Amino acid sequence: MRTQVGIVGAGPAGLMLSHLLHRRGIGSVVLESRARETVEGTIRAGVLEQGTVDLMVETGLGDRLRREGFVHRGTELRFDRRGHRIDFHALTGGRAITVYAQHEVLKDLIAARLAAGGDIRFGTRVTGLDGLDGPRPVIRHVGPDGAEGELACDFVAGCDGFWGVCRAAIPEGARREYQRTYPFGWLGILCQAPPSSEELIYARHERGFALISTRSPEVQRMYLQCDPEDAVDNWPDDRIWAELRARTEAEGFRLKEGPIFQKNIVAMRSFVCEPMRHGRLFLAGDAAHVVPPTGAKGLNLAVNDVFLLDRALGAFYATGSSALLDGYSAAALRRVWRAQHFSWWMTSMLHRFEGASAFDDRRQLAELELVTGTVAGATLLAQNYVGLPLGE
Amino acid sequence: MRTQVGIVGAGPAGLMLSHLLHRRGIGSVVLESRARETVEGTIRAGVLEQGTVDLMVETGLGDRLRREGFVHRGTELRFDRRGHRIDFHALTGGRAITVYAQHEVLKDLIAARLAAGGDIRFGTRVTGLDGLDGPRPVIRHVGPDGAEGELACDFVAGCDGFWGVCRAAIPEGARREYQRTYPFGWLGILCQAPPSSEELIYARHERGFALISTRSPEVQRMYLQCDPEDAVDNWPDDRIWAELRARTEAEGFRLKEGPIFQKNIVAMRSFVCEPMRHGRLFLAGDAAHVVPPTGAKGLNLAVNDVFLLDRALGAFYATGSSALLDGYSAAALRRVWRAQHFSWWMTSMLHRFEGASAFDDRRQLAELELVTGTVAGATLLAQNYVGLPLGE
Repeated sequence: MRTQVGIVGAGPAGLMLSHLLHRRGIGSVVLESRARETVEGTIRAGVLEQGTVDLMVETGLGDRLRREGFVHRGTELRFDRRGHRIDFHALTGGRAITVYAQHEVLKDLIAARLAAGGDIRFGTRVTGLDGLDGPRPVIRHVGPDGAEGELACDFVAGCDGFWGVCRAAIPEGARREYQRTYPFGWLGILCQAPPSSEELIYARHERGFALISTRSPEVQRMYLQCDPEDAVDNWPDDRIWAELRARTEAEGFRLKEGPIFQKNIVAMRSFVCEPMRHGRLFLAGDAAHVVPPTGAKGLNLAVNDVFLLDRALGAFYATGSSALLDGYSAAALRRVWRAQHFSWWMTSMLHRFEGASAFDDRRQLAELELVTGTVAGATLLAQNYVGLPLGE
Repeated sequence: MRTQVGIVGAGPAGLMLSHLLHRRGIGSVVLESRARETVEGTIRAGVLEQGTVDLMVETGLGDRLRREGFVHRGTELRFDRRGHRIDFHALTGGRAITVYAQHEVLKDLIAARLAAGGDIRFGTRVTGLDGLDGPRPVIRHVGPDGAEGELACDFVAGCDGFWGVCRAAIPEGARREYQRTYPFGWLGILCQAPPSSEELIYARHERGFALISTRSPEVQRMYLQCDPEDAVDNWPDDRIWAELRARTEAEGFRLKEGPIFQKNIVAMRSFVCEPMRHGRLFLAGDAAHVVPPTGAKGLNLAVNDVFLLDRALGAFYATGSSALLDGYSAAALRRVWRAQHFSWWMTSMLHRFEGASAFDDRRQLAELELVTGTVAGATLLAQNYVGLPLGE
């Protein structure tokens, strides 16, 4: 079996790349170890930058997004029991974010690829990459029936996430990894309740961070800062609601509660692999970088990566020039590091740090006052939250 | 002996307060333990915010300042061996900073007070404060001849710095202190050389922070991040120049060197005392708060404090209303905490932290790219550096 671009992983990076390449007439095959239902049912991120939305709409993926997504023209930072709105729309020249769950994006991408005759092999586990240094790399894999196979291609796109095999295929001496682990995690819940707020609420509280988010008029997503080693069994519903109420308390605000039907705890870490390319292998998305969820940048970085990679591959096939391919890693990493800083900033500004002194607490509040109380501060946050245009 | 406002300390806060009160016709006596020559000869800060300059000019202290001060309409952040200018003037609607040494401000203030018949008692050590809870507090002191005396007054202004007696006169249960010590200090030098740059250079380098500042066409002030426990004896001139050259290296830049005639090492700390008032005692300047020098805020915060205190005392004597006096601490602290955050931000963005990971280093560079590469980031820095209008 052979194709032009072999794509490992049917997450946002892999599927979007396959979709973009197809529009240029470049062939690809996507290999994904999980079943389609698992891919389409795993709850992950839910905030799309303006550039991600624009790309989806421009490339024919906008129908359901426009119908079911929620456009948020601002967000709220809450501290000292008061809410402070950051007006994205006014501060960024009309840009906004759209709340639309990652697995809905994946459903749309899979449907579009399959409707266009795209080749996505679910249940197909990649076991190794060969020949990355030459012109004909090979992706070894095992299909759902246990049959071993090889996919020969011109290029390999490593879109298989943090735990995938692609990054590990780069020799250790040829990559450098940067990481930071935060001393807390997020307990996330899904519940059946109406929205408590029209926009997201990022709450800084002396008991810890909380985030009020939404999924639909009936389903809400909320998060609580917790110990990263904690277990959901320690969080009965009553405790979750008491903690959410305490951390989001404000004049005139009432948290809308309802049956909790999912709980999970995620660790918070930052990770970057440099470079994002080795020979004919190009990493994209979580395979190359992980951000803590506070800045809502993970999915959007993956989309920016493949936007750049699609353009570079397009130039190569159209003109034979590898200039954009050679510049891919540096171009992608510029935005990655900016997003790492932004995610760290949002995280450090809003979370409670064990061992923080009374001075640190007051300084943190002064920073929130600066960000919410000055046009320059609010603009810095708004521009980074709604995101740069793709490719910048 | 009695007066309306007894002022402890002839630093920027105490002298400026005496000067401002005099213009309203309110009497004061300034008690200062040091000799006049010591006060006028001690090298400290050297960057005046726009509001500080405006106040000096408006109150008759502008002649020498305008003649000898250097107006800087921007500054440079240097990292990765490249300079990035922050254009204060363009980003803040025409505001700027003025480089004019603190002891020159003090000389101007002392001259103005003495010319106006002001009462400054040098060599007079304050030993205690009594009756702060009643309407007639008393300041006990010992004069240069060893004679004990008492100054009775309506109000006491505690402007005697971090190590002074005034803050300590507030019972421990009636104040809360916040502090943070940074794990590094600054080695400062004065040298005879022409300026290396027209504007200040804040340099972030993997060997540590450096700051190129100026005093006059012939005298330059420069700083190097160092161990706070280090001694100047460990820093022969050759080592200082080698380190300054390495940390400020950039295409086309040449550090101008010359004989070093002063060296000192200062620790870096943040400190805030809340509230800044107890009964008839009002703290101002370093007696209530200390900032690390990175943001150049120390002198300017002192000026803002006494600007507010003068206004409050003026209202009290004019109308009998103590509303502004009652609001003094909260109003002053709002700016103090903002300056604490700004100073922490400048410090954390530009210094090398022992034990920082490779991730932390790269994130720090990404932050500097954001601040120098975006209008919102540069504006946030510029507005805070040149300072808010006084009283805000």
